[in-house]
Amino acid sequence: MTERSVRNAAKTAGRRRSPGRTDKVALGQLERHLGYFLRRLQLWVFQDFIETLGPMKVRPAQYSVLLIVEANPGRSQAAIGAKLGIERARLARMLHELERRKWIARQANGSDARTHSLHLTTDGAKALARIKRLAGQHETKLTSVLGPGRHRQLMTWLREFG
Amino acid sequence: MTERSVRNAAKTAGRRRSPGRTDKVALGQLERHLGYFLRRLQLWVFQDFIETLGPMKVRPAQYSVLLIVEANPGRSQAAIGAKLGIERARLARMLHELERRKWIARQANGSDARTHSLHLTTDGAKALARIKRLAGQHETKLTSVLGPGRHRQLMTWLREFG
Repeated sequence: MTERSVRNAAKTAGRRRSPGRTDKVALGQLERHLGYFLRRLQLWVFQDFIETLGPMKVRPAQYSVLLIVEANPGRSQAAIGAKLGIERARLARMLHELERRKWIARQANGSDARTHSLHLTTDGAKALARIKRLAGQHETKLTSVLGPGRHRQLMTWLREFG
Repeated sequence: MTERSVRNAAKTAGRRRSPGRTDKVALGQLERHLGYFLRRLQLWVFQDFIETLGPMKVRPAQYSVLLIVEANPGRSQAAIGAKLGIERARLARMLHELERRKWIARQANGSDARTHSLHLTTDGAKALARIKRLAGQHETKLTSVLGPGRHRQLMTWLREFG
């Protein structure tokens, strides 16, 4: 992967998000802020994920919930929300939507209705298999755009914050 | 900056966002997705920015607009929105708020009301000077958490997408 191909991929990403002439707009002191560039790449990655996952209509946060439920069957809604840093009300809406699609099932734990435990359904496991294949395509594209060495190094550094 | 201090900073960040016991929740295949870890770090950075900028009540997107207006006085709303990838309606709301605070002024360009050009006011320039000092503190903290070498390398790589 050459520098030029990375730049071209970045330009393509920029075009997709921001039509219009922007060449001559200077960033000023934004140039000094990592957070700005981090956010740009994160938006590009999420946008590519959403487009690649289009056939399954799955957003990044839904995918992360499905993977966590798969890896931790029977865990509580609260534990999963805490792990992913998703607020209680937002997670409740997401889970409602995933239940509506019959991909997950919630089971009340004894007397405390707040501690619902979560499982994938058979349909959910099938859907997740398809979703993972598409998510794999997305990750392959991202690896190619960044270059495998950079992808690996970024993964190592960023995981320390995960 | 040692590996351990980076991990501790990351843990502190995690605690702030996600109270509750999450140690034993496995990430499963999320481990393979750079986007997940990118998003976690981005959220941490934005949260730290918001907290550090607390005295000025400025969010990252508002700060980016102020810096772009400062660096490109008289440019149109459309050009600035395109550069930052902010949708038209959201940018309009942000500019309205910045006008209400008397930090920016909009001036209609001749007959076409859509091509308002933007300027900082004197009050806006004063406020931005204070905001930049706080934003500098935030960036110093981020540099220290990541380590200066990593901060520099990330900046170089991510700017190719900016």
